[in-house]
Amino acid sequence: MGEEVKNTSEEEMWVVESKEWYLASYAPHGVPTSDHLKLRTVRLSLSPDSIPDAHVAVEMLLFSIDPYLRGRFTGTLDGLYFPQFQLNQVITIFGIGRVRRSKDSKYKEGDLVLSASFPVAEYCVMSSSEIVAKIDTASGISLPDYLSFLGVPGFAAWLGIEVVGDPKPGSNVLISAASGGVGMIAGQLAKLRGCRVIGSTGSDEKVRLIKEEFGYDGGFNYNKEPDLDAVLSKFFPDGIDVYLDNVGGKMLESVLNHVNKFARIPLCGMISQYNKVWTEREGIRNLLNMVGKEVRMEGFLLKTHFNRFGDFAKEMDGYIKQGKIKTKIQINNGIGTFLDSLNSLFSSSNIGKVVIQVKP
Amino acid sequence: MGEEVKNTSEEEMWVVESKEWYLASYAPHGVPTSDHLKLRTVRLSLSPDSIPDAHVAVEMLLFSIDPYLRGRFTGTLDGLYFPQFQLNQVITIFGIGRVRRSKDSKYKEGDLVLSASFPVAEYCVMSSSEIVAKIDTASGISLPDYLSFLGVPGFAAWLGIEVVGDPKPGSNVLISAASGGVGMIAGQLAKLRGCRVIGSTGSDEKVRLIKEEFGYDGGFNYNKEPDLDAVLSKFFPDGIDVYLDNVGGKMLESVLNHVNKFARIPLCGMISQYNKVWTEREGIRNLLNMVGKEVRMEGFLLKTHFNRFGDFAKEMDGYIKQGKIKTKIQINNGIGTFLDSLNSLFSSSNIGKVVIQVKP
Repeated sequence: MGEEVKNTSEEEMWVVESKEWYLASYAPHGVPTSDHLKLRTVRLSLSPDSIPDAHVAVEMLLFSIDPYLRGRFTGTLDGLYFPQFQLNQVITIFGIGRVRRSKDSKYKEGDLVLSASFPVAEYCVMSSSEIVAKIDTASGISLPDYLSFLGVPGFAAWLGIEVVGDPKPGSNVLISAASGGVGMIAGQLAKLRGCRVIGSTGSDEKVRLIKEEFGYDGGFNYNKEPDLDAVLSKFFPDGIDVYLDNVGGKMLESVLNHVNKFARIPLCGMISQYNKVWTEREGIRNLLNMVGKEVRMEGFLLKTHFNRFGDFAKEMDGYIKQGKIKTKIQINNGIGTFLDSLNSLFSSSNIGKVVIQVKP
Repeated sequence: MGEEVKNTSEEEMWVVESKEWYLASYAPHGVPTSDHLKLRTVRLSLSPDSIPDAHVAVEMLLFSIDPYLRGRFTGTLDGLYFPQFQLNQVITIFGIGRVRRSKDSKYKEGDLVLSASFPVAEYCVMSSSEIVAKIDTASGISLPDYLSFLGVPGFAAWLGIEVVGDPKPGSNVLISAASGGVGMIAGQLAKLRGCRVIGSTGSDEKVRLIKEEFGYDGGFNYNKEPDLDAVLSKFFPDGIDVYLDNVGGKMLESVLNHVNKFARIPLCGMISQYNKVWTEREGIRNLLNMVGKEVRMEGFLLKTHFNRFGDFAKEMDGYIKQGKIKTKIQINNGIGTFLDSLNSLFSSSNIGKVVIQVKP
């Protein structure tokens, strides 16, 4: 009996309270609110006995907040076709955690690990097969950089520019959401290829940023441009060769009036359209231009190209170490900021890559 | 003086009256009418003295009537970006003529020749450099077939299927304007690749034709289908892998709700949109599906791929001689039918490839 009490007590020592975000109801359109995404506290045991073989207990450190997430709780497969979170299910996300206990010999306590499917929680017990990589702390790369340069936005930017868009030296390149997580890196990759790069962003401050920090040749604040056609004429007197589309809608339509022969339009995402059901989305009326200009428009997702992640990471690692590429990361403090952090992507109130630091 | 009279008289013997179609005014939108395209009669000398070196005098036999022509007299570069005919200029077109007199040793009287820039006229004197090929009359291929299988629609179909769409055996393929000049050949090329091919056409008679004559696995009359989504669900329970788009508009939008992962959409043309200025064209609201399904949509023009014409002609020639591919040609009699022949493409009143025989 005494031993049982002792065991219970020891077991109790391993129990942690963990805050976590879960899906309370689907949000088919509009900006998601606290009616859809809610925070709750659960009790979780990290004791040796409660962790199955080939599993690890992880304390979460950082989360990567990316626009694609919006497509995972619309309750439809509309547009992005990502698997939907189930009601009451914890949201899962790309992030970094520290191993607290391991039942897999490949990982030990203290290891820093990356996963694309961490729960948005303070702690978790998960299959070690969900770990994408172990972080080499001697690399000299900061942890948030693993979620920017070397994470979702970095890989998306690399695929958009290097694989799908493939601009040539001297090409005229336009990037929308240019100061966002993907845009800031994509612009720099295009510059490294010798392109002329213009960015579209949502504020004068961001225009300054992309030019002064990220080396864009120019940029404009679309909120101040009632006539997108005029601004594109001004910035692209010789037309657009590659447009990395992160926003869709009116910008995409306007671009199609300025494309050059054989232009390429990698479709990374369409953030201006995510909060609408498809019949409410802005129709693009001038796709016929794609015939006359022989344009290629192509959507891409990261998971399809995971076999190229090594090539990407090697190239990017070189750029970082040579100081050839910069990033700007907005770190929001505390797991409680998840909903606001997500919505900052849609209100264009973020600058750079948005990351949540779980414990301030 | 007597000799001069004689010369004038001899010269006069070579003068022909030639009817020709010219552009009287631009037609930015709507169906072109006799206000825009007019017939006139001119006098033309085919005398040896009036033909410059490296030129030929040609009597026109057959013209190829193709939808792209519509884009050459809108008065804008809107959408197709083809060079515009000038006011009062004779319309030029793909066709077949017989050499009546030659000042180029490569051609002799009686030769049958193809050109992409014959005037829509009964006779012409033109630079021999405008001749694309001399027809081998021993080939066993009929003259109209050179404008169908082996002409503009055949090459467009081949590029759409073999080069840009590239469906695999077993792929689910949809072709719009399926009984038209391009569609009928494209469907058969896709069948030769082992695909399952469905066609969209504008009448029950055409549905019967594509199934019975051209070997389509199925087809539907879009005029009888108020719910395109439902008809695509019915014909494509496993989704669409390749859609050869000849029409644009609502059909393209509906297709994007049924595409499979990595679908390809070669854009050959968008005939439903040609008679509208771009701001009046139907907006496509669901391009976001291209991200989630990683779709590639790509416009193409024939002239860009002329370096592949030899490959095309060789392959097609083989199919024709082996009886593996059929064509249906609607021959309209007399140069006077030009305007009606062109408009038959937009009213969907034609079946198969439309050709004008200059002299009935």
